[in-house]
Amino acid sequence: MSLFAIATRKLRRRLGAVVDTSKEGCWAASFDSSKISFLPVAVVTPRTEKQIGPVLELANRHRVPVTVRGRGTTLMGSAAPVHGGWVIDMRRLKSVRIDAEAGMAHVGAGATTASIHRAAEARGWFYPPDPSSMEHCTIGGNVACNAGGMHGGKYGVTRDFVIALRGFLPTGELVQWGTATKKFAAGFNLRDLWIGSEGMLGVVTGAVLKLVPMPAARWTLLTAFKGEVAALRAARLLFRQRVQPAICEFLDRESVLCAERATGKTVFPGPAFAKATAGRQAPRAVILLEFAGGVAEVDDLKYEVLAWAQGHAVAFKEARSRAEAEELWALRRKCSGAMFELGDSKLNEDIVIPMRHYERFARFIARLKRRSGLPIPTFGHLADGNLHVNIMYHRANPAETKAAEAAVQQLMVTVVSLGGAISGEHGIGLAKTPFLRLQHNPAQVRAMQAVKKALDPRGILNPGKMFGVVRIWKYPKLQLKVPWDHK
Amino acid sequence: MSLFAIATRKLRRRLGAVVDTSKEGCWAASFDSSKISFLPVAVVTPRTEKQIGPVLELANRHRVPVTVRGRGTTLMGSAAPVHGGWVIDMRRLKSVRIDAEAGMAHVGAGATTASIHRAAEARGWFYPPDPSSMEHCTIGGNVACNAGGMHGGKYGVTRDFVIALRGFLPTGELVQWGTATKKFAAGFNLRDLWIGSEGMLGVVTGAVLKLVPMPAARWTLLTAFKGEVAALRAARLLFRQRVQPAICEFLDRESVLCAERATGKTVFPGPAFAKATAGRQAPRAVILLEFAGGVAEVDDLKYEVLAWAQGHAVAFKEARSRAEAEELWALRRKCSGAMFELGDSKLNEDIVIPMRHYERFARFIARLKRRSGLPIPTFGHLADGNLHVNIMYHRANPAETKAAEAAVQQLMVTVVSLGGAISGEHGIGLAKTPFLRLQHNPAQVRAMQAVKKALDPRGILNPGKMFGVVRIWKYPKLQLKVPWDHK
Repeated sequence: MSLFAIATRKLRRRLGAVVDTSKEGCWAASFDSSKISFLPVAVVTPRTEKQIGPVLELANRHRVPVTVRGRGTTLMGSAAPVHGGWVIDMRRLKSVRIDAEAGMAHVGAGATTASIHRAAEARGWFYPPDPSSMEHCTIGGNVACNAGGMHGGKYGVTRDFVIALRGFLPTGELVQWGTATKKFAAGFNLRDLWIGSEGMLGVVTGAVLKLVPMPAARWTLLTAFKGEVAALRAARLLFRQRVQPAICEFLDRESVLCAERATGKTVFPGPAFAKATAGRQAPRAVILLEFAGGVAEVDDLKYEVLAWAQGHAVAFKEARSRAEAEELWALRRKCSGAMFELGDSKLNEDIVIPMRHYERFARFIARLKRRSGLPIPTFGHLADGNLHVNIMYHRANPAETKAAEAAVQQLMVTVVSLGGAISGEHGIGLAKTPFLRLQHNPAQVRAMQAVKKALDPRGILNPGKMFGVVRIWKYPKLQLKVPWDHK
Repeated sequence: MSLFAIATRKLRRRLGAVVDTSKEGCWAASFDSSKISFLPVAVVTPRTEKQIGPVLELANRHRVPVTVRGRGTTLMGSAAPVHGGWVIDMRRLKSVRIDAEAGMAHVGAGATTASIHRAAEARGWFYPPDPSSMEHCTIGGNVACNAGGMHGGKYGVTRDFVIALRGFLPTGELVQWGTATKKFAAGFNLRDLWIGSEGMLGVVTGAVLKLVPMPAARWTLLTAFKGEVAALRAARLLFRQRVQPAICEFLDRESVLCAERATGKTVFPGPAFAKATAGRQAPRAVILLEFAGGVAEVDDLKYEVLAWAQGHAVAFKEARSRAEAEELWALRRKCSGAMFELGDSKLNEDIVIPMRHYERFARFIARLKRRSGLPIPTFGHLADGNLHVNIMYHRANPAETKAAEAAVQQLMVTVVSLGGAISGEHGIGLAKTPFLRLQHNPAQVRAMQAVKKALDPRGILNPGKMFGVVRIWKYPKLQLKVPWDHK
């Protein structure tokens, strides 16, 4: 009997029914949305926070790898148990309690982001981070990868809303980083070190989140531009006026085409658009804006923003009701899934570009499309420079696969040379490990590794991520649909 | 010749004139605002960031303690070179550049907080953190202790505005944590680990800061309450309406009395107040509020806030001009210095209390005043629970000193038992070391120490702080005035 098997037997004896060693259970926990499967030997689904201490204490003693998962919506492979061992599934720790006076949410790691949104909204509060998988993904996972979403530019990302964390060291000792207060300056900030550390430095079991008052008014505007460079230039002009949209989503022409196919509707089919583009129905790059705030505040903004649209867009359309706004948003939501008509595989790179290099980056992407011969629909969050560059290819086609690999490498080199980030909200996991050293110099990587060694000396927490180089596209991929796959 | 002296000779040979070993130079760098002096053997005042690498490289090789200082405005002893060695004075690295499009400030560690405020304001942007010493203190120091100020509740503290940091590891290697982008999810977050680490994990040389649009309108309102409990209860009712003041400053009756003495004016001397209090002129607990936002937004708020004041305050007064607002703010600014009429020594404890325990805490402070027999004027930031509890005593009076020591211990125990923080914006330094273990359990302290060991294996960066227990009130205190002492 292997050492892991002995440890697993001890674990079952200690925790009983919450430990699952069945084939089906282990298979279901063997992959995340990167769809690359690595079988664990047991899955623990604790009913209470307290049950996690003994799991870690045993794992640490027997050097069993431990990978924590929420729902596994990550595309980066961050929740895949590459070294086997045990998976801790947080789905049962899903409590959500709103402190409506202090404007805080007390949540368990397994609460879905959407459940937090709804609970906050019911009390007049707003939790802005909104990863696209928010109906499924958990706050524990959001903390692990410092998830973002569309509201990042104005409001910030998960990190900006985490007030305190509870959880365990790999030794099984319970720790708490921060208190349920908006200020805390006592001791080293391990709270923020844990955020974005992808489960490699500690196990998050709960969080206190900051909420903001729910904006009383929202207003949505869709604007169209001749091309990507024109759209990005116009966005910069808007930001220069210090206008802060709650959401500012860009879709390049290829993304718009995908959305049009998915919705069966042409964006701006009306005469205004036909006139402005001399009757052509070719897709335009678009920027979809949402403004949020007090009623008077949003009204004030309308004038300014409509003047900007009149000056720079070839066409625009404002939503006059929530239903009209929803229709405009469908465009953004549908574009991602429709991309799979362009290829069966996607490298979705959530890079970040400083605003001053927007046009330069648009020209680079145009060149990258030409050179690689691949469709590379690009969309994303302009208020914070976080763009999703989707390199589409067919996995069975070696030439396309090779071109995709080369394209992602060129992309990352360019992003870093422009002073940007190789990831804005997905994290490194396995998928971005080939690029970590483009972003960080050797001293930076050594410092990170030293921190890992200090907090997890036996290396049991989510081993194999971040620092090793894994070319994820070379691994066989499961052919299955998960509920949060884009339709 | 001692080993330090040999290293210092090497340092002078290498860097020349920026190294000062004079008696006066070393004395001036021997203390911060805690006014406890520990002489270093050399002070380096680099002209460029590049000069810092060799200092650290030499220090690390020869195990010379290195303490970094801005202006030394900290009250906690965080910038006092307790183990001697070398001081790096950042005052010359004071560049400030505003990126008005992206809404970011690129600053050197030695830039004063006020200089950043002014540069941002000139371009229509706002940098909210505003420690009371902002005309003197530097952003490097703000980062080191995660400084706050009056705007914390609505806007956040220094941490919430740091986008990226540049600096050095103790080995002298240059590192950069984050990019000048609002999203960054690539690798462990050493940026935030450095923030608040009081110069013990790395040397910050520059930062990129997030700015927010300068609010178009501000409105100030002073409200008076019968006593502390009534004031704090009323504040909670306001927050329950999800009203977010930009500033919400509380002064207890003792603090108001101090301010009245300093300004020579009675708060609310008019007939309205006299009537409400049956002619008595006894000081009232006050809450001073500032609202900021768009013109229409602030106008909307006025109705709601005035209705609240009418319902709960015994008197109130709104500022009808900027000059009137300044007059109201003088009250808040002057209270702190005037406290020295109550004692020649002050233990200024920047504790944080969860909102739901406000009234309970007010009753505790009333008991603490009675029991200790000491004046304990208390004021602070109600929107984030960060209160400044000022225990006043005469240093030469052993009974008072003993009472003050006992009071601070009881205060900290109570704060932690209520789920609060022992420091909200000052940090630990030397002064709060006796209380660190009230806040953090042994596992938490061990984790912090492991991180320290990992990033500074030779322990050269600001040694003697945070983890050792130092009872600062037992050290002789310099009798001198610094420019940022409260008048």
